[in-house]
Amino acid sequence: MENIIYSDGELKLLDQTLLPCREEYITPKTKEDYFYAIKALQVRGAPAIGIFAAYAMALLPDDKVELKDYLDSARPTAVNLSWATERMLKAYRDGKNLIDEAKKIHNEDREMCRKISEYGLSLLNDGDGVLTHCNAGALAASSYGTGLGPLLLGKERGYNFHVYCDETRPLLQGARLTSYELEKAGIDVTLICDNMASLVMKQGKINAVLVGTDRIAANGDIANKIGTSGAAILAKYYGIPFYVLGPYSTIDYSCSCGDEIVIEERSGDEIKNMWYEKPMALKETKCYNPAFDITDHSLISAIITDRGIVKPPFDINLERIKDND
Amino acid sequence: MENIIYSDGELKLLDQTLLPCREEYITPKTKEDYFYAIKALQVRGAPAIGIFAAYAMALLPDDKVELKDYLDSARPTAVNLSWATERMLKAYRDGKNLIDEAKKIHNEDREMCRKISEYGLSLLNDGDGVLTHCNAGALAASSYGTGLGPLLLGKERGYNFHVYCDETRPLLQGARLTSYELEKAGIDVTLICDNMASLVMKQGKINAVLVGTDRIAANGDIANKIGTSGAAILAKYYGIPFYVLGPYSTIDYSCSCGDEIVIEERSGDEIKNMWYEKPMALKETKCYNPAFDITDHSLISAIITDRGIVKPPFDINLERIKDND
Repeated sequence: MENIIYSDGELKLLDQTLLPCREEYITPKTKEDYFYAIKALQVRGAPAIGIFAAYAMALLPDDKVELKDYLDSARPTAVNLSWATERMLKAYRDGKNLIDEAKKIHNEDREMCRKISEYGLSLLNDGDGVLTHCNAGALAASSYGTGLGPLLLGKERGYNFHVYCDETRPLLQGARLTSYELEKAGIDVTLICDNMASLVMKQGKINAVLVGTDRIAANGDIANKIGTSGAAILAKYYGIPFYVLGPYSTIDYSCSCGDEIVIEERSGDEIKNMWYEKPMALKETKCYNPAFDITDHSLISAIITDRGIVKPPFDINLERIKDND
Repeated sequence: MENIIYSDGELKLLDQTLLPCREEYITPKTKEDYFYAIKALQVRGAPAIGIFAAYAMALLPDDKVELKDYLDSARPTAVNLSWATERMLKAYRDGKNLIDEAKKIHNEDREMCRKISEYGLSLLNDGDGVLTHCNAGALAASSYGTGLGPLLLGKERGYNFHVYCDETRPLLQGARLTSYELEKAGIDVTLICDNMASLVMKQGKINAVLVGTDRIAANGDIANKIGTSGAAILAKYYGIPFYVLGPYSTIDYSCSCGDEIVIEERSGDEIKNMWYEKPMALKETKCYNPAFDITDHSLISAIITDRGIVKPPFDINLERIKDND
């Protein structure tokens, strides 16, 4: 499955907001199109956003410095976004071919996903029950994705996993995207509501929890889709390993701990009105709709990056895989 | 808020199927009207169904024995329904005034709710942040309800609570009913998704969790709406008191622990299709939709019934409030 396709000066993006009912590609033309695609989650998942923004930097004729700032502001929590635009800005200043640089970022992502999938798969056993939250599959990155990578790679190698995929309110990425991707890959998947995770864990159906991540702090605290910290606390309570999978580029060494990460708050309409024919609460009812939460490092069994499996103590072991430049 | 209003020989019922968008009272006239109201969930919540059926037995001119059987068949599994019609049939045979008997059932429920509310309120402080799950308010019973009772009673006494009400997937009772009831009562309420509970707890916004219950085992394990056990585990992790509120009649002394309680499994359509214009997962995707879960007694700070506040050890202290007949 390819969600971002570049060919002959044109970028095609699988519009994730239409899944699973419709599989449609859009072709953004202006900087506003690209901004909207990121903001409105037509493209989502840290690596995919980075790839998409890299092509935007290469293809759009606008001033590169202003363009970088403009694109970055579409999703302030996504560190991959500013990482990719920064790299493209540097390539521009170095006089590099920007399309080649964007393709390089895309290919590096494919390689990164494959490595994470291999490392992650080494932690699982044939027949395992796995809980997933949100979507960190091919749709969120390239090829295998990150969080779902071990499942997709394992399936190719004949592993039979039993995946419980939570729907991930309010945007339902688990229902619309993860269950869709796993079903398409022929993996045994069962959709549950977020609040059913405790019960399936108690029933012994879950051997491991796999989640992606938007940002990893130097101490191993991670930011990921709202609800991740809850799943981690349940896993800890039931004695189930909780694995976080993401690229090395997701580690933000300048961020000492999760408290420094600002959590994006989104519109309450996503809770009350979106998806529905009729509103599910009164117009005057307030909503609180944080898009992410912080999972404390003490709840995480291992962080799996393309540089290997990092185990606690994370402050020391994340430092060990750090670039020294 | 009154969902069932009797006055001058006429009964008015707030049609819960139209909430929160439309507030309409229906005035059932025939036995078919009453039957339909129960069957179609225009009235829901075990105590409320019992009260409604009692008035039906009093007001309708039909043969009482046939009427009881007819009404009971509207929701064969609702124990309160047949309990109330049986009591009304006995009152009829004893030559009692049936309107008075129905009012008595209604008043007993108000009294039960009021006691639970008083006991529950004694555990809260002005300014507290409270998390609720599902709906155990006036709509499901009379006057204050059970789980929401302390909030509604406290409001009357000038307490300012800040309530976080989770939407309670898949049937959204929190969004559609609890946030509606609290908003109408002028209580500060914020609607969140179930998976946001961990974050609001971490942020220090929650001082107590209040939930209702469908069944209390002799050891203090409780069955309640799916997701209750997860909220309890989070509360334990963050050191927040977790309170369960329900009538004494909910305690099942013949049930030694939660493992003996069979969990009802409902259709996956409630997860994938209900409420939505378009399905949220592929037609072939399996769903698991348990309606309840069991919360272990070790996670519960206190069980509040109309006979008082029961604290751990629950096996001993629940026995202390037991009838000896």
